[in-house]
Amino acid sequence: MERPISFVSDYTEGAHSEILRRFSETQMEQLEGYGADKYTASAKEKIKNACGCPEAQVVFLTGGTQTNKFVIDVLLRPYEGVISAHSGHINAHEAGAVESTGHKVLAVQGKNGKLCAEDVERCVAAYNGDSAREHTVKPGMVYLSFPTEYGTIYTKSELEAISAACRKHGLPLFCDGARLGYGLMSRECDLTLKDLAKLCDVFYIGGTKVGALCGEAVVFTRGNMPAHILSLVKQHGALLAKGWLVGLQFDTLFTDDLYFKISRHAIDMAERVKAALVDKGYKLFIDSPTNQQFVIMQNAQIAALSDRVRFETWEKYDDENTVVRIATSWATKEENIEKLIKLL
Amino acid sequence: MERPISFVSDYTEGAHSEILRRFSETQMEQLEGYGADKYTASAKEKIKNACGCPEAQVVFLTGGTQTNKFVIDVLLRPYEGVISAHSGHINAHEAGAVESTGHKVLAVQGKNGKLCAEDVERCVAAYNGDSAREHTVKPGMVYLSFPTEYGTIYTKSELEAISAACRKHGLPLFCDGARLGYGLMSRECDLTLKDLAKLCDVFYIGGTKVGALCGEAVVFTRGNMPAHILSLVKQHGALLAKGWLVGLQFDTLFTDDLYFKISRHAIDMAERVKAALVDKGYKLFIDSPTNQQFVIMQNAQIAALSDRVRFETWEKYDDENTVVRIATSWATKEENIEKLIKLL
Amino acid sequence: MERPISFVSDYTEGAHSEILRRFSETQMEQLEGYGADKYTASAKEKIKNACGCPEAQVVFLTGGTQTNKFVIDVLLRPYEGVISAHSGHINAHEAGAVESTGHKVLAVQGKNGKLCAEDVERCVAAYNGDSAREHTVKPGMVYLSFPTEYGTIYTKSELEAISAACRKHGLPLFCDGARLGYGLMSRECDLTLKDLAKLCDVFYIGGTKVGALCGEAVVFTRGNMPAHILSLVKQHGALLAKGWLVGLQFDTLFTDDLYFKISRHAIDMAERVKAALVDKGYKLFIDSPTNQQFVIMQNAQIAALSDRVRFETWEKYDDENTVVRIATSWATKEENIEKLIKLL
Amino acid sequence: MERPISFVSDYTEGAHSEILRRFSETQMEQLEGYGADKYTASAKEKIKNACGCPEAQVVFLTGGTQTNKFVIDVLLRPYEGVISAHSGHINAHEAGAVESTGHKVLAVQGKNGKLCAEDVERCVAAYNGDSAREHTVKPGMVYLSFPTEYGTIYTKSELEAISAACRKHGLPLFCDGARLGYGLMSRECDLTLKDLAKLCDVFYIGGTKVGALCGEAVVFTRGNMPAHILSLVKQHGALLAKGWLVGLQFDTLFTDDLYFKISRHAIDMAERVKAALVDKGYKLFIDSPTNQQFVIMQNAQIAALSDRVRFETWEKYDDENTVVRIATSWATKEENIEKLIKLL
Repeated sequence: MERPISFVSDYTEGAHSEILRRFSETQMEQLEGYGADKYTASAKEKIKNACGCPEAQVVFLTGGTQTNKFVIDVLLRPYEGVISAHSGHINAHEAGAVESTGHKVLAVQGKNGKLCAEDVERCVAAYNGDSAREHTVKPGMVYLSFPTEYGTIYTKSELEAISAACRKHGLPLFCDGARLGYGLMSRECDLTLKDLAKLCDVFYIGGTKVGALCGEAVVFTRGNMPAHILSLVKQHGALLAKGWLVGLQFDTLFTDDLYFKISRHAIDMAERVKAALVDKGYKLFIDSPTNQQFVIMQNAQIAALSDRVRFETWEKYDDENTVVRIATSWATKEENIEKLIKLL
Repeated sequence: MERPISFVSDYTEGAHSEILRRFSETQMEQLEGYGADKYTASAKEKIKNACGCPEAQVVFLTGGTQTNKFVIDVLLRPYEGVISAHSGHINAHEAGAVESTGHKVLAVQGKNGKLCAEDVERCVAAYNGDSAREHTVKPGMVYLSFPTEYGTIYTKSELEAISAACRKHGLPLFCDGARLGYGLMSRECDLTLKDLAKLCDVFYIGGTKVGALCGEAVVFTRGNMPAHILSLVKQHGALLAKGWLVGLQFDTLFTDDLYFKISRHAIDMAERVKAALVDKGYKLFIDSPTNQQFVIMQNAQIAALSDRVRFETWEKYDDENTVVRIATSWATKEENIEKLIKLL
Repeated sequence: MERPISFVSDYTEGAHSEILRRFSETQMEQLEGYGADKYTASAKEKIKNACGCPEAQVVFLTGGTQTNKFVIDVLLRPYEGVISAHSGHINAHEAGAVESTGHKVLAVQGKNGKLCAEDVERCVAAYNGDSAREHTVKPGMVYLSFPTEYGTIYTKSELEAISAACRKHGLPLFCDGARLGYGLMSRECDLTLKDLAKLCDVFYIGGTKVGALCGEAVVFTRGNMPAHILSLVKQHGALLAKGWLVGLQFDTLFTDDLYFKISRHAIDMAERVKAALVDKGYKLFIDSPTNQQFVIMQNAQIAALSDRVRFETWEKYDDENTVVRIATSWATKEENIEKLIKLL
Repeated sequence: MERPISFVSDYTEGAHSEILRRFSETQMEQLEGYGADKYTASAKEKIKNACGCPEAQVVFLTGGTQTNKFVIDVLLRPYEGVISAHSGHINAHEAGAVESTGHKVLAVQGKNGKLCAEDVERCVAAYNGDSAREHTVKPGMVYLSFPTEYGTIYTKSELEAISAACRKHGLPLFCDGARLGYGLMSRECDLTLKDLAKLCDVFYIGGTKVGALCGEAVVFTRGNMPAHILSLVKQHGALLAKGWLVGLQFDTLFTDDLYFKISRHAIDMAERVKAALVDKGYKLFIDSPTNQQFVIMQNAQIAALSDRVRFETWEKYDDENTVVRIATSWATKEENIEKLIKLL
């Protein structure tokens, strides 16, 4: 019997062919170590151009948790914490990596995975209004992800409001873009990469889930990258000797809009799944405009399908139903979408 | 003009062709995330076999500093420090990564980059003999590298003595094998990988400098891998979503002895350089039997050669001479060795 | 004009006279440093007897946050977090001290400042039931305080249930007893110190708020004090050269039941205040049986009283009213209680 | 038989009578918590005056290791280390407390417990000259103690040279003054407290060893105290609810020059011991002008004396002799000095 097709996540396949081609092409070139090579330099330029932000500073790291932990640690003072939605990846699914650097995650409830400007205002007001203020953790940064854990995205006006609240209170706004392409290429998205660069103080462009074997591109947008960044990266255990492992991948992804084209593919595939789900009467758990679709499915059906198609179990819905996640990606094959739709 | 050929380090080229071939071959396979894939499992088995240590536990990490920091942090209790030669990588060139996890490096002078069993005994005796013992850092582990920073290697009997001292005092012996292949394949080496697995409590097999784009294979030899290792790796920011990025590379390196064959190539190249140096009357700074050769060269000559061949400046020797390092690797081309010899 | 009398907290006065007498008496004795003196040894014995727990191990520290941070840090593994009520002191008012040691506080809502056995079960079940378990923080300990931040206390059966849940899941139960005397001496308390020692794995007896200038006595009840405790205390910056500063205070407090007698005095004073409040028609914010009374007061009245009597502002109730805390202590003078009652 | 008299350390007795008197006097006053009380404020003013440094900022902490750890942690950036003599307390006898905050101690050999301006220059030059600079720990601060672990003191010109080197390279100079009074009151000292305040960026005035039960007064001399200092102190577990425990002690010590008078007494006593030792032909291990005298004594004699007088064993000298430390203090009785001299 065939292996079941998988919609478990957007990191089930390897790297885009164009990336593999360039690994082969450059294999025997002798390059500078620790990110001082020409491909890494080129990737940084292309990213700054794409962001419309020539003054940006770019650092390449390896994975999402590493990046979240690093950015939060190097930008916060010891007595500061980071505001996040309760469902935020840093709060829920990073094994305490942020806390391991000494910082508290200040979790706010949020809605559909998103926080809002009022959440920021409330946190700051609670801190400022507390007579025992010095005994509490000072809000020092705002973390959000785009898209969120539930596949939802912020509108431009929502993000503008959050950004304004952050700037009013001197809090850097940090956007986790592990799936950034899938957010920006959503048809409901009214934000561009350039908008994001204007509104955030630091964000990252996720590679691992969007065509790369590994790698995230951190963009400090306002000359706010800490000094001695290489030492900080090294100390975090995040410095690659062969820095071009990530640099070359991003150089490829940001050539001829590859990053955006393959992100759009994932969105196209997700939309076909979503339409089919709605068409067949499935109930969506949340209305996601990105590559992750959350649908309520009968436990019996999940079991029956399991030798032909696999999803991620998200959470229990009730005794007979479960919320499952169907994730598409840059690598999703159309034929598998068709198989899935038939099986549903 | 041609680009100068480089002997600056053993991480100037990308990955071995066989590794690239397998990345291409497996590109569109849908694999389990976080190291639960079949290639990672296969790599672990092959490594355990090569170590003659079926009870070993293997974890794949991305780079050397990350690995050193991780292993030391997860095995030490907070009040313990790690004994290392003063020149040890963790003491000299990791930007304080070990200390950033809260642990002191207990540096001993060492000789030619190596420490010895007596160093271990002295550290333990100093601690035990101190009436203010509880106010000092307890030796909790011994760190050494094979080969060392100076390219030297331990003999089997030296390592046996160190291992015996460690076991007598309950100290795990940790071997940094970032360049392990180049040590084991040295013609002066009387140790095998199996010997190493017997004598050490934990060690790693370096991939980054030996044919891989990145990756180190950590081997816990005595059932001493800490529980919840995946959470610990994640918390350290070291968990790859696409775990096979490293697993597949090691699976390749440990198929048909590729790791050892390419390591031997680097040794062959280094021996030719060394013989030529001696032949031409150069003075070696240290007598290294591995892929790194340290030679004293006139500053004028270094400058004159610099547009045709490049080395790493190691340290000042005197006002007119400098110690340079000539590193070969799995990727060193014979034609470049010939060019170098002509230039010398 | 007279200084206003203060019910702001239970740490407004210095040390009990008997403690000061013994500081004078022992002033010129030459004692062993770092807690090896005879008074510290005597205090440990008296505490173990009072706890009915001869196998207990006692460590003296200086203050509450220091103690919470220390106990949690030395008992947890890096990947573990501590379950606490949302209002718990470690979560709300310690400036992130616990997180600064690398550990997440796993906050549960709680009720009236208390958590319950079901909260523990839910946390453990959520962790165990999570398919991405290794990416989340493992519950590693339960923290509660007796009395709580709201002055409430656990009944014996409540604490038995929590303790049973903890033991079932291998979680140490840690009780913050910064105000322990005021809990145990409450007339509603059906627990003894011996019960507490049986039900908890570690707890502390607060001195700072109960007659001492500083000092908390940590009791490990089951042979579970970590090895090398003195080094751990030192490393935390918590080791006093003149250890008897705390040891002698506890030796005094645990002679002739002084600790309990002065705690009872605070309760007597609080009960008189509470009775008067109820009598005069004030609305209690919470029904506290201990030395802290929380009452809803008109903002205008608080302002009018402020040059004669001072309270802690706890939280806004509505636009015209505020919750204030009235705290009594071992040092509260009966005449001040009478003055307060007249003023209300 | 009488208890042996002790010269083991300068922290064997309690607090000066004047301090105890003031504890009694203020016992029932209602004071503000967390160092906001009037006695703490008064102590700060007196210390700033004594330092001739009205712009200084003063923080009170509890003990020496806590203070060293705190100051170093809050002033360094994560990638920075602290330069110290190898024998420095932070390097040798604080159980790794500094490293536990993530920072490396950059140990230099030193001489008689002291480092010099050239040591600072060498460390900085080594860092700046290293082509792999970003992979090494950046010197970020200079730590020295006055007096040193060997009782020696810096001359004014030595300290001026070190201070100049520090300012040239932007390194704060931190002086550990756990025994500051005994240094400043030495007859060989050509430095005043005001000189020290001018030359150092931060230093502390030790109370624990000079008349107090506990307490160190940290002085930031150049407006360089970090913001949110109270939160930082709290997070370090170093904030006392009854802050006047330390404030009142320093207010007393800095009234009528008490700190200096009692320090001078210790020096007077030490000089009598030293003169007697020299007179009787003992060999001094080091020529100390402060309250600690290091003398080479026969093992047999130490044993013979041990039931009448006790010293600290410092280190083995040879098979038949040991270096012992004889420490005097503010509390040393003249009659005991006479007894000691008779016994020698």
